[in-house]
Amino acid sequence: MKIRISLAQMNSTVGDYQGNIEKIKDFISKADEKGADLILFPELTLNGYPPEDLILKTQFLRDSLKSIKEIQDFSESKDVVIVLGAVDWDVESYNTAFVIYKGEIYGSYKKMFLPNYSVFDEKRYFTAGRTPFLMEIERIKIGITICEDLWVPNGPAVSLAQNGANLILNLSSSPFYKGRNKVRFEMLKTRASELSSWIAYCNNVGGQDELVFDGGSVVINPYGEIELSAPSFEEGLYFIDIDPLEPTRANLREGKRKHYNQSAYYESVNTIKIAKKITEKNPIKAIKVDSFDIYEQLYLAVKTGIKDYVWKNGFQKVVLGLSGGIDSSLTAAIAADAIGPENVLGLLMPSQYSSKGSIDDSIELSKNLGINYKIIPINDIYEKYIENLKESFKNTDEDKTEENIQARIRGNLVMAFSNKFGYLALACGNKSEAATGYATLYGDMAGGFSPIKDLYKTELYKVAKKYNELHGKEIIIKSILEKPPSAELRPNQKDEDTLPPYALLDEILFKYIDREMSYDELLQEGYDEELLKNVINMVNKNEYKRRQSAPGIKLTERSFGKDRRMPITNKYIPW
Amino acid sequence: MKIRISLAQMNSTVGDYQGNIEKIKDFISKADEKGADLILFPELTLNGYPPEDLILKTQFLRDSLKSIKEIQDFSESKDVVIVLGAVDWDVESYNTAFVIYKGEIYGSYKKMFLPNYSVFDEKRYFTAGRTPFLMEIERIKIGITICEDLWVPNGPAVSLAQNGANLILNLSSSPFYKGRNKVRFEMLKTRASELSSWIAYCNNVGGQDELVFDGGSVVINPYGEIELSAPSFEEGLYFIDIDPLEPTRANLREGKRKHYNQSAYYESVNTIKIAKKITEKNPIKAIKVDSFDIYEQLYLAVKTGIKDYVWKNGFQKVVLGLSGGIDSSLTAAIAADAIGPENVLGLLMPSQYSSKGSIDDSIELSKNLGINYKIIPINDIYEKYIENLKESFKNTDEDKTEENIQARIRGNLVMAFSNKFGYLALACGNKSEAATGYATLYGDMAGGFSPIKDLYKTELYKVAKKYNELHGKEIIIKSILEKPPSAELRPNQKDEDTLPPYALLDEILFKYIDREMSYDELLQEGYDEELLKNVINMVNKNEYKRRQSAPGIKLTERSFGKDRRMPITNKYIPW
Repeated sequence: MKIRISLAQMNSTVGDYQGNIEKIKDFISKADEKGADLILFPELTLNGYPPEDLILKTQFLRDSLKSIKEIQDFSESKDVVIVLGAVDWDVESYNTAFVIYKGEIYGSYKKMFLPNYSVFDEKRYFTAGRTPFLMEIERIKIGITICEDLWVPNGPAVSLAQNGANLILNLSSSPFYKGRNKVRFEMLKTRASELSSWIAYCNNVGGQDELVFDGGSVVINPYGEIELSAPSFEEGLYFIDIDPLEPTRANLREGKRKHYNQSAYYESVNTIKIAKKITEKNPIKAIKVDSFDIYEQLYLAVKTGIKDYVWKNGFQKVVLGLSGGIDSSLTAAIAADAIGPENVLGLLMPSQYSSKGSIDDSIELSKNLGINYKIIPINDIYEKYIENLKESFKNTDEDKTEENIQARIRGNLVMAFSNKFGYLALACGNKSEAATGYATLYGDMAGGFSPIKDLYKTELYKVAKKYNELHGKEIIIKSILEKPPSAELRPNQKDEDTLPPYALLDEILFKYIDREMSYDELLQEGYDEELLKNVINMVNKNEYKRRQSAPGIKLTERSFGKDRRMPITNKYIPW
Repeated sequence: MKIRISLAQMNSTVGDYQGNIEKIKDFISKADEKGADLILFPELTLNGYPPEDLILKTQFLRDSLKSIKEIQDFSESKDVVIVLGAVDWDVESYNTAFVIYKGEIYGSYKKMFLPNYSVFDEKRYFTAGRTPFLMEIERIKIGITICEDLWVPNGPAVSLAQNGANLILNLSSSPFYKGRNKVRFEMLKTRASELSSWIAYCNNVGGQDELVFDGGSVVINPYGEIELSAPSFEEGLYFIDIDPLEPTRANLREGKRKHYNQSAYYESVNTIKIAKKITEKNPIKAIKVDSFDIYEQLYLAVKTGIKDYVWKNGFQKVVLGLSGGIDSSLTAAIAADAIGPENVLGLLMPSQYSSKGSIDDSIELSKNLGINYKIIPINDIYEKYIENLKESFKNTDEDKTEENIQARIRGNLVMAFSNKFGYLALACGNKSEAATGYATLYGDMAGGFSPIKDLYKTELYKVAKKYNELHGKEIIIKSILEKPPSAELRPNQKDEDTLPPYALLDEILFKYIDREMSYDELLQEGYDEELLKNVINMVNKNEYKRRQSAPGIKLTERSFGKDRRMPITNKYIPW
């Protein structure tokens, strides 16, 4: 007899109990209608992930308990076992999976391994559980784990398998970054195979401030083969029929479980029995989606991030400055896909240093995308500033000050549209700029959200090409893709007058930031000493700018923001 | 025979190994010259506190080990036992106290309790030690603890006392906030008394980004009485002669240690013996400083924070906008004390809405302080913006957009001076503004450092009055202290047109933010429902502004910044 598992790959909103409850109920009803025996939700579905310091308010915690009760009551009329992620609270708070069936809470599992690195602060909020959790439905033994629990080699899953689990559930809120889903699938396949157990993994989907969750939920058999794989970046309910009791050849052949070192694991396992009958049903075919190309994933991540930031924060429209460069062009293009071109307003704000090409390119791009645009020259405003500062700046040379004034006039104009019409302002900076400080605070850095701030300049071109490929035409036009990058804040300026060539710069930045390599390790890789010192100095000295930058989407292993917490006051010089 | 203890209340700089080493050597030499048997440093003196993600670079860790070696070598010629806080590293990193004497590392203690709340992220960086540490010098048993270790009731100090410690050292980096030092002294007195042991507590001093450490190191006898108390906010080396072997009457009288529950504590204690002879010396008198008034403390904290942010980041001078209001006036006044009036430049940037009083008051204040000032009207620049936006804004009413444009012109001008002359721009916003969003992003919020952002409006007046009192004259003039707060961005504007009266607003904000009270708890306190909803809505909806605000000094129990980590995307409505 096969058990029907359904995975609710759901897009929660942090703190939105009522909205999340409605969605949860809807998923439960659908699962029940389609004869699912069990429905699995992502980690902290009810509260949204991560709720951060909301967890320090008692009322938020009480409301979590109340909301669980609401799901409990709702479940009474359904014949499906619900495994729901929510915050539990007594004196301490716990990251918990509740097992709810027919109006009753059968038990709950408290997450045992709390990540406290990278973007995660779970030890700030939660107390770790101490006991693995197993539930029996008929003769099927189902273990429950939450996210990190399954990533650590010595986690509760080993005890669960040792205690006979044939199926291990994982409620997850695992954020996207480039290449992450591949690593995740590999880990899950390894676990299924080494534990000789089915694994059903349900991941969060959608954007939350700096994070985008990519979904990509899977069910894997005890041979480590994917039997169900849900789409990435899409909300949905996915079904599979499996028979975890069929003694797996893998298990018999290799006798894997006999090798477990008994003494290394937890002394006890909470075990509950659920009075659920599994009945015969018409077979259902599980979805299997091929995973996307890596640049398509990046495109989808940015699109999801923009859409959810805009909508979840109550905006309808966005405004951004269009310079004719790749950064603002790509941001506008993805924003148009995310929320509709009619909801995107591009501002062209030429100065005396803007090339005609830049303006023409932005107009052509706007037309290709079908977005709105306006042209507001800044020259006369700039002249006024210079006039009013003339006395104070006499006997000084022109320098980056004058460039920044222009950028900040543009920032002021973008924000004026944002304030006047209630549009969200998007900042268009990239990771190479954020890293080196090659950007103007309150100027081009102005905006409420910064969608591509975690993409290196060289990566932007690849995403842009993928964008054109996916749309089957050259929406982001050739001249945008091919012109040499320039801030156009002084005559004939090129980025590479100030910065090393992007190909080289991005390579060093990747190693220094994403891979946390040290100066001496980089030196050993053969990079020029002066170049390295220059790049590392730029990175370290511009922490103050990044600290005031708009949040953007984590797209790499180490993004700026809460993923990288460097002091501003920092006299560490590694040479 | 008395042992001479010296406390090195030192101002480290994060990452500045060479600078910190020089200071440490200097303190050791002075302690040795004055016949100290032991010198105690604050937590992580060598690395600076907190080093944050610098700890994720292997080279930073290797340099920590190298720097310890340098102190070790230096110690060879000195006859003083050195207890130094530094990061230790093997595969994991540890927050460690090294015991160094005559060129040898006798042992090290790894911090057992790692704070991971409020501004602290120690579980992100460190692995907790597992064993308490005791060292013997002649017959004196000296236990070592690090900061949090002594705050928890069941920490290693109990085991140390149980194993005979007569003196417990504490290396600390305990940040200042209003009223903190009182709580700290009470805790230390309680510990000394309940453990029947001397406590020597050495705290960090100086500013580091959002934190200011106030020093205030103390030595407390086993009756819980302060025998030495060092000044707050001042670097220095402080001496005391004590005889921890003299059987304390407290201990004999109450037999306290007999009551310890043996089974509750750690199984083993690392114990080392140091071949140091304690010799007779001429008695030395310990300093005892009365603790300051609370508003004097706030003044000193802001002063220290400004000075260290400016100097440690390589600046000499600051620039700020002077509006004639209390915020910018107090900021300028404290900055003048911190780095010298000749290093402070005030910009008066009147618009058509600026009252004559505001300009006159700012000029008078500047003269009282002896700071430089310049007047740069913004009206004509503003007119240009309005002209260029006329077409786009036709059929719209004037609203906060036009106000924000003015504030952002001022932000642009302040930043232009910052860029042109290399001055640090100070933002002058207060906590009431930051909480309610009553401030313009990239406008008055522009700046690299925001010294008073954690002081509520009503508190500013008290600090300003204390400032005048300390200086013995009315430097911050009466009309600044008495005028009703106004942003002066439209005709006859007053803050209280938009906000509730500050006395009431600040009271609610304090309870909601600093004390983490929930809406329902506040409602029970009898506040008007609509008022509460309005205030809480303002706080919750303006998280995006705070996320982009300049760092400022933590001055209260719960500051904005890394002390309060709220999601921006947050649909939690507590009613």
